[in-house]
Amino acid sequence: MPLRPVLLACALGVAISPALAQAPARGMQEILDGAPASHWRTLDPQHTLYLELEAGRVVIELAPAFAPAHVANIRTLARQGFWDGTSIYRVQDNFVAQFGDAEADDPAQALDLGQARRTLPAEFERSAAGLEFVPLPDADGWAPEVGFSAGFPAARDPQAGTAWMAHCYGALGAGRDLAADSSVGAELYVVIGQSPRQLDRNITAVGRVVHGMELLSALHRGPEPMGFHTDPARRTPIRAVRLASEVAPAERTALQLLRTDSASFTELVEARRNRRDAFYKRPAGHIDLCNVPLPVRVAAD
Amino acid sequence: MPLRPVLLACALGVAISPALAQAPARGMQEILDGAPASHWRTLDPQHTLYLELEAGRVVIELAPAFAPAHVANIRTLARQGFWDGTSIYRVQDNFVAQFGDAEADDPAQALDLGQARRTLPAEFERSAAGLEFVPLPDADGWAPEVGFSAGFPAARDPQAGTAWMAHCYGALGAGRDLAADSSVGAELYVVIGQSPRQLDRNITAVGRVVHGMELLSALHRGPEPMGFHTDPARRTPIRAVRLASEVAPAERTALQLLRTDSASFTELVEARRNRRDAFYKRPAGHIDLCNVPLPVRVAAD
Repeated sequence: MPLRPVLLACALGVAISPALAQAPARGMQEILDGAPASHWRTLDPQHTLYLELEAGRVVIELAPAFAPAHVANIRTLARQGFWDGTSIYRVQDNFVAQFGDAEADDPAQALDLGQARRTLPAEFERSAAGLEFVPLPDADGWAPEVGFSAGFPAARDPQAGTAWMAHCYGALGAGRDLAADSSVGAELYVVIGQSPRQLDRNITAVGRVVHGMELLSALHRGPEPMGFHTDPARRTPIRAVRLASEVAPAERTALQLLRTDSASFTELVEARRNRRDAFYKRPAGHIDLCNVPLPVRVAAD
Repeated sequence: MPLRPVLLACALGVAISPALAQAPARGMQEILDGAPASHWRTLDPQHTLYLELEAGRVVIELAPAFAPAHVANIRTLARQGFWDGTSIYRVQDNFVAQFGDAEADDPAQALDLGQARRTLPAEFERSAAGLEFVPLPDADGWAPEVGFSAGFPAARDPQAGTAWMAHCYGALGAGRDLAADSSVGAELYVVIGQSPRQLDRNITAVGRVVHGMELLSALHRGPEPMGFHTDPARRTPIRAVRLASEVAPAERTALQLLRTDSASFTELVEARRNRRDAFYKRPAGHIDLCNVPLPVRVAAD
């Protein structure tokens, strides 16, 4: 059924250029292998966090475009070594791994925030004006429009003129209490299951894990309600959380990420919307925002 | 903003009965605590698999309504003890854990299938006629209609008159090679990440994990491409896979599952579409099929 993918795509209103329709469709690996250097980007070390665990390093890209106040506070906390010696104290199956100061709710035991701010505004959404945004052609149930903003899965409301980060697998958010403005960035969580998009615009998303995700997703689930580990011995110790810019260049993890505003990424999205390899008998003609792969590779020296 | 949830729901075309709109909205726990015994069901031991690991038991509900030939073969294999001593030999982050005979592709080493059939028809979809189906009000990008069929997340195409199981977190499927009819149910996988709905109607789904999911989702990811463990020492041993009906009643796991055709479940879905607790500032007015919780409780003696 060689024509089926194209027919399906056209039926769903996706513009297929004549050149693309005639060219043999390429799979993800071919697209990545053929992507020129200009289609890849490197991380800004000022906005990259290294979460250092005994099992290895988790690399996180912060998103100052979406949560400038939280990102600034997180950078202050990292420079102070706030998280060094804290733990991952909550791992809830199909939801989140959460880390920071397990005693933050107890004023007698809570760690000092030092130079960091004690209150921050909620940063649930921002103005869409001036924000890079590459729309996905597919409809989404949670938002009027979804797509990618400089590597981050995101959404927009054209009527309201707002934009926000989406809670996909690997998203990093700032835990809060009931008050919308009760997060300071000291308690952070990472999504380790089915995308909990109901959190979008209800909590401040501050970045995403770009490397080492399996060091969080495969952690032993906490036995208490909501996945908490009340036994400190079962928590996962955090050696340190550091800004990449504070780490010697030779000790940094040199990653390259496919630019979401590149032609290679556009081709990749279409290749995943309509898989044309021999395994898939019925290309979906669709992809959900959180199913789109965001390729990362370790840079060659 | 007490009226917002109802307004949002009405704007999306969901019928809210006057009684429900006036009653104080109940949260998930209240709904479950108040559900009468008739809203719960027990598993059919003839169609329940126990995957016994050193860490504990994973309970799987098989779906003969969707994949009768595969389920029959899986039952034959389980009765023969086919999986006893095999392993979970693939764990790919944000995708699947796969188990069975790691040497199945090598005729010289493959385990004997015994009385089980060597070929089965592909069971990617079935006729929608005669199938219980409780539709979800929300639009879905992957299928014309989604909902629940006797506890299983499912989809329908009203025009084609077909129905199929959806690949949500916890779904169990039958691994295959390139040919559509190359699965026999001996190699099985469980979804442990973001729902890979592109697999719907491309592979035979045979059931879902209803208990013990964290014994699969937290496994160490395989270091080889696609998450394979080529080192047998790093695979997770399987003590046994047994039908519950072959296990002494006293050793069975007594579970109760909320019926997806019950009024309690309908109320639960709405409670999750529009969360009204103090944490959520902006109820989504939407839920994706694979975000709907499917409550399970251990039955009281």
